[in-house]
Amino acid sequence: MPHLTIEYSANLPHYPEAETLTALNAALCAHPQVQDEADLKTRFIVADSFEIGIAPANRAFVHAQLRLLAGRTPEAKKELSDLIAAVLRERTPRPQGVMVQLSVEIVDMDRDSYAKERL
Amino acid sequence: MPHLTIEYSANLPHYPEAETLTALNAALCAHPQVQDEADLKTRFIVADSFEIGIAPANRAFVHAQLRLLAGRTPEAKKELSDLIAAVLRERTPRPQGVMVQLSVEIVDMDRDSYAKERL
Amino acid sequence: MPHLTIEYSANLPHYPEAETLTALNAALCAHPQVQDEADLKTRFIVADSFEIGIAPANRAFVHAQLRLLAGRTPEAKKELSDLIAAVLRERTPRPQGVMVQLSVEIVDMDRDSYAKERL
Repeated sequence: MPHLTIEYSANLPHYPEAETLTALNAALCAHPQVQDEADLKTRFIVADSFEIGIAPANRAFVHAQLRLLAGRTPEAKKELSDLIAAVLRERTPRPQGVMVQLSVEIVDMDRDSYAKERL
Repeated sequence: MPHLTIEYSANLPHYPEAETLTALNAALCAHPQVQDEADLKTRFIVADSFEIGIAPANRAFVHAQLRLLAGRTPEAKKELSDLIAAVLRERTPRPQGVMVQLSVEIVDMDRDSYAKERL
Repeated sequence: MPHLTIEYSANLPHYPEAETLTALNAALCAHPQVQDEADLKTRFIVADSFEIGIAPANRAFVHAQLRLLAGRTPEAKKELSDLIAAVLRERTPRPQGVMVQLSVEIVDMDRDSYAKERL
């Protein structure tokens, strides 16, 4: 059930999406909170139209959002967040002269109304 | 006010988006929780860059997220989730040899800070 | 840390994204809840495939979602929501014969598991 979405600004070209997807899924599926590896669905989104702050600076971002069924402990959520940050820290391009912000957010999904099946 | 977003992986080509949009809106607007049909805003997103789990299997997903102002009962939320799942179950392509996961998530939106108007 | 995403339906062509990004960031960074202007990351998404309600009417939408670390007062969240609505009300195209809905949603992000760094 975990849904992971990685969004990055379009001024980070040549983002190694394929290898980052593989690295993220490997890292998360090794964590005990992900019980069935097939449940982890990870995707990339590129933000083509964006602006960061108000200063005339050269800035970029990469933001991860992991959505999990509610019930994880704060410790488990922090561990998952740190795992994701570690993978993105290593793989995110750092173009010269660009300040790159990395952030990771964990979201609880409502368990009672969640529907899930394999077609 | 309901916002419905359907996301699916790009290995589900020929997804019948137009007829699924019509079917989703018809199903949800017939439910008493949707009081003004014009409020229901449904959209599709295609995930072009994705990976599911770590096994070398052929996998796809379709994930629906319905965002509602907070205050619905758990029963109402489950009903809406089931309605959406039923429409998607019927319309989602099932390419041969591909394991397709379907999921539906209901999200409460903060009521006090929600702004809404018609321009 | 604030993440602002503006989504609009593709039947609002010529949306002035660049000037709206600038206006949104200027308005929000002037608010005391945004302490470091560089933290505000704003982006646009266009919904190409969408349907609003079930009537055969010509309808469009623009929806803003602002994600903030939890802990803001309801008053602060309402102020931020109103600021965003004011900018979008002024800048959103209103094609003749199209009913345009504007909405703004504020989302609390889990503070304990949030990760953030500059690369």
